[in-house]
Amino acid sequence: MNEHMKAVELKKAFRLINYGPTILVSARHDGIDNVMAAAWCCALDIDPPKLTVVVDKMAQTRAMLEASGRFVIQVPTIAQLSLTHEVGNRSLYEEPDKLEKSGVSIFDVPGQDVPFVEGCSAWLSCKLINEPHIQDAYDLFIGEVTAAWADDRAFRDGHWHFETAGPEWRSLHHVAGGHFYAIGEALSVEPEPAERVGSPL
Amino acid sequence: MNEHMKAVELKKAFRLINYGPTILVSARHDGIDNVMAAAWCCALDIDPPKLTVVVDKMAQTRAMLEASGRFVIQVPTIAQLSLTHEVGNRSLYEEPDKLEKSGVSIFDVPGQDVPFVEGCSAWLSCKLINEPHIQDAYDLFIGEVTAAWADDRAFRDGHWHFETAGPEWRSLHHVAGGHFYAIGEALSVEPEPAERVGSPL
Repeated sequence: MNEHMKAVELKKAFRLINYGPTILVSARHDGIDNVMAAAWCCALDIDPPKLTVVVDKMAQTRAMLEASGRFVIQVPTIAQLSLTHEVGNRSLYEEPDKLEKSGVSIFDVPGQDVPFVEGCSAWLSCKLINEPHIQDAYDLFIGEVTAAWADDRAFRDGHWHFETAGPEWRSLHHVAGGHFYAIGEALSVEPEPAERVGSPL
Repeated sequence: MNEHMKAVELKKAFRLINYGPTILVSARHDGIDNVMAAAWCCALDIDPPKLTVVVDKMAQTRAMLEASGRFVIQVPTIAQLSLTHEVGNRSLYEEPDKLEKSGVSIFDVPGQDVPFVEGCSAWLSCKLINEPHIQDAYDLFIGEVTAAWADDRAFRDGHWHFETAGPEWRSLHHVAGGHFYAIGEALSVEPEPAERVGSPL
């Protein structure tokens, strides 16, 4: 946890993932940490903030988050392109030193018994909302965001600042097979209106 | 339907939304069409392709897609920034001429009894998979993609070509309150490996 990691107001936490970045999912169980990449993560509600994430039955992270009931969704940056691809393609089952090989450094946050990945631009600590049918039928998991943080060099005052942050802070958006796009230029329609509950636009 | 609208192989349809664009949802019921914008849409499976989309109880589109069991997810472009914001903020309940006021032109595709929005870069025609519990508890809908198309000026040969298409073709990624980012530069980790089923990375 460094001086740039600042708490984000919970009702603005959806903004950390609303624009569709590829994310990293991390979980801890029995003293073991794992991290995987996932493009299939999406906001589900604003207040209290919830999100969905798809985690395949083959992923060891899945068994860990099911057992602990906790996980972290974090937003990797262009500087972590290789790391993101590595944790998305290596398996802890086959390589116990997966995290080290992938260049992942884990840090702890006081009061949070979940692993956080260093160097990301945002972190959402989630409590699993158990929905066995959709977990089993669709590999779809629902989390309630119980705390959120962002690196103030990329996100502050409730807004992303990609246009003024260094290019290495931009988010990754996976298409397929190692092909990504970075997030691009800012566009605004009009001055920000009052937040409309339950409506993302 | 114009000469640039080309069918996309179903097992590659997830690529049309995998990178997190804000999308338009359209539905038809009883001879009435509606279109809304949503940032909360996400791929759920590759083959057969499925996706999730969050549609608030206040949205008229919701009643229509529940009644007809069909909807279209389409990817709007920078050229449609204002249209996207308008259909995300106007209600057909309050304004029966919402689509006209928002600048939406609807077209039909033979064999598809759902409305398609002109000018988008991609279209995914979906059949609702009824999951009453998550629809009611989370406003979360699951669709199976039964046919998909893209404009070949933006997506062809299974890949997006934002880097060579005109800037007006770039996708929109909504953060909050009318603030969007466009998709940016292409980044690749390595030559495309064989597709890994059930794993988006």
